Amino acid sequence: MSSPNSNRFVIDQQVEDIEMPENLKLNTFLQEFSVDCSHPECNFGNYGFAFGQAPFPVPKPVVDALVKNADKGTYAPVSGITELKNAISKYNKHYFHINVDPKRIIVGPGTKELIFNLLELLHGTVILPTPAWLGYLPQIRFLRKNYHMLPVNKDGKISPNKLKHLALRLHDRQKILILNNPNNPTGLFYSQLELEEIADVCRQQKITVISDEIYAMTTYDFSQFVSMLQIYPEGTFVTNGLSKSHAAGGYRIGYVLFPQHVVNFREQFKKILATEYTATSTPIQHAAIAGFENSVEMDDYFKVTRELHKIMGEYTYNRLNEIEGVVTTKPEATFYLLANFNYYADDFAANNIKTSQEFSIALLDHPYHTALVGGDSLVLERTDFSARIAFVDYDGNNAMKNWIAKKPSTASARLEFVHQNAPRIVKGLDMIERFLKDVKTKSIVKFTHKEKNSNAI
Amino acid sequence: MSSPNSNRFVIDQQVEDIEMPENLKLNTFLQEFSVDCSHPECNFGNYGFAFGQAPFPVPKPVVDALVKNADKGTYAPVSGITELKNAISKYNKHYFHINVDPKRIIVGPGTKELIFNLLELLHGTVILPTPAWLGYLPQIRFLRKNYHMLPVNKDGKISPNKLKHLALRLHDRQKILILNNPNNPTGLFYSQLELEEIADVCRQQKITVISDEIYAMTTYDFSQFVSMLQIYPEGTFVTNGLSKSHAAGGYRIGYVLFPQHVVNFREQFKKILATEYTATSTPIQHAAIAGFENSVEMDDYFKVTRELHKIMGEYTYNRLNEIEGVVTTKPEATFYLLANFNYYADDFAANNIKTSQEFSIALLDHPYHTALVGGDSLVLERTDFSARIAFVDYDGNNAMKNWIAKKPSTASARLEFVHQNAPRIVKGLDMIERFLKDVKTKSIVKFTHKEKNSNAI
Repeated sequence: MSSPNSNRFVIDQQVEDIEMPENLKLNTFLQEFSVDCSHPECNFGNYGFAFGQAPFPVPKPVVDALVKNADKGTYAPVSGITELKNAISKYNKHYFHINVDPKRIIVGPGTKELIFNLLELLHGTVILPTPAWLGYLPQIRFLRKNYHMLPVNKDGKISPNKLKHLALRLHDRQKILILNNPNNPTGLFYSQLELEEIADVCRQQKITVISDEIYAMTTYDFSQFVSMLQIYPEGTFVTNGLSKSHAAGGYRIGYVLFPQHVVNFREQFKKILATEYTATSTPIQHAAIAGFENSVEMDDYFKVTRELHKIMGEYTYNRLNEIEGVVTTKPEATFYLLANFNYYADDFAANNIKTSQEFSIALLDHPYHTALVGGDSLVLERTDFSARIAFVDYDGNNAMKNWIAKKPSTASARLEFVHQNAPRIVKGLDMIERFLKDVKTKSIVKFTHKEKNSNAI
Repeated sequence: MSSPNSNRFVIDQQVEDIEMPENLKLNTFLQEFSVDCSHPECNFGNYGFAFGQAPFPVPKPVVDALVKNADKGTYAPVSGITELKNAISKYNKHYFHINVDPKRIIVGPGTKELIFNLLELLHGTVILPTPAWLGYLPQIRFLRKNYHMLPVNKDGKISPNKLKHLALRLHDRQKILILNNPNNPTGLFYSQLELEEIADVCRQQKITVISDEIYAMTTYDFSQFVSMLQIYPEGTFVTNGLSKSHAAGGYRIGYVLFPQHVVNFREQFKKILATEYTATSTPIQHAAIAGFENSVEMDDYFKVTRELHKIMGEYTYNRLNEIEGVVTTKPEATFYLLANFNYYADDFAANNIKTSQEFSIALLDHPYHTALVGGDSLVLERTDFSARIAFVDYDGNNAMKNWIAKKPSTASARLEFVHQNAPRIVKGLDMIERFLKDVKTKSIVKFTHKEKNSNAI
């Protein structure tokens, strides 16, 4: 690959220093696998518990609106088109019971970029609860911000007391808590009471909150979800968008709700957006209006997709927890749970699997071909064998139709539904069980595909 | 507007320090104007020579492709979808005679963001020829990069000799020249010979070039356009996209062509994109394929829109240069020219117009209501009364139809075509002439709308 010109360019040290974000790394891995498995008996089946993408079609009103506005080629205003901001304001009123003036809303090309822009905007030290979504840390590092981890309690949630003690140790003029609620990777969400306790600490310690609520609409018992903006309106920035609730991550659109009473301050944020990317795609903004407008069709969509996430989560939770030594969080929202495989640490060691990354790689190898997101990608210790399991590897379109046609009403009907509609989830979980059994009997040969060693297993 | 909470947040100093990008500032101005003019006789007509946006509809094949792919909700790969990179590769082969492996192509949400990302990627001091597009400098400043201006020669172009002397003074390990070709604001483009002379200096002085060729397809005599990547393949990054040539700035899609022999190095770039924004909108990428694929329909579109830019440029050039003391560049591409009003400096001073910004504001005021981009927004001296005139304020859809129906063949028919199809350009240029006459007779009252002084003029 080298050439006389390879090194003629000087790359910024900051760029060299950041690691490849994990989602990208994993993608590369899987691409290599799909061509590289050289086992003669391999009929390649990749069971994907790694990707965080809802399997459903984009809601019809959204697609229809994109079709109708496909010819809109002119630049949009930097903060978003007025009709969209109005729709977002009403959406937040209707579903989250918060009154947000459209002037407090800024639209951007995905919440990932908006969170990056908020981290550019806000001076201060970041408090990152762990485990965490794999997107935050590369952003914090790339921006060279000071940061501190805040490991969650055994129940998978932030301890207000630990938050307070950490904040007391930080002497920056401003502290920024990244609250991901509902949470990726645990699938848990914070109750109103829990949020109030966190907000109390934030008020005392002058902590600004970036509340990433991208999974809010997926909360299985939706009436229980409460936005942090309701609890701590003076200090919370909320980010949300179409990506998860509307299965439209590929559209690239999100929004920020600004805290109360910061009108002028938003102008500073707009400067960043105007400097970096002008505006968000105009046709996509028009499409998003339909996704945020209240309608029977959207209501039904949220309801059905929520129920499907719940049944898949329930199955995945039950199946994993019946495996010897495996414990997991019990998902109440999102399409993830966090599974703890540390019970197998000694067995892994005996198979020369010493880190969570080696665990992920071994599980990707023949014959398991099962992808999950290992602990080091979730900002856990390298030797912590916890992993995120996404339960979305099924035909969502089909599952929606079957669910609407006949909703399973008994426990056995629910089991049958999963077997019928999500056979790859069923098989993939079987593979995890098989892998753990093989590990116990020391029959794992790690990462053989690289060596094209077809007799390895 | 102030409140007890206004100042509770601490904003990053870097953000406070950057100025609002000029396009945003201007937008705000115009919005204020459209509601604020309080002159009793004002029938508000805003003649827009300020916005850099082609007036045409998005080409039908592109709109059709967006309609067809409106349901594509899944995330795209970070560097762009394969079919799009293939289409871009063929497009560059067909129109620009450059062979670019699709692996050397990276797609992003607009060239503005890609240029920002390149400036993040590349270490070094930036050389910015002036006058310059209003987007570069806020990016350079926000990233706290070292930079030096390189004022162009009287002919509106970079002097290779001055470039050399500037480079010799810079002791950074890498120098980055931002070459905007064809050029915004001058409307000029560099001949093959001129590019070769610049490339010679870049080779000697190890200067890396970011060649922003977003206006390439608008070159009136298209066969004369040559990409810098053809001349200096080992040191040039080219950026281009749909925004100008396809009148789809609102779609937000662009691409970078990487220099030869830098395969691994692209991975560094992908890290930045994955950290900041995941990927570019999937439906928009699919739409873009149709815009880059070679077809009779697209060929005709490029031809007609180019001819319309040319005739509007010709009229604007002739009309301005017949005004006493006004000299302008003669556009050969883009939809801009640079007009020099310095002849009026003393008359401006007598009217209390001392800077180019005051000039812009005075011209926006009643009764002229004419918007242009003043010199300070083009990175010229504050007292340089040069301004960018964009000749796009007409109904492009209609003009295309009329042009196709009956192309004017004589000089008087061409004049008649502009009067019929672009009456606002005609009137706006009349307003500039009237303004300059009024300035001579000291009858300008500056920026009166703010004071609601309806008897001002």
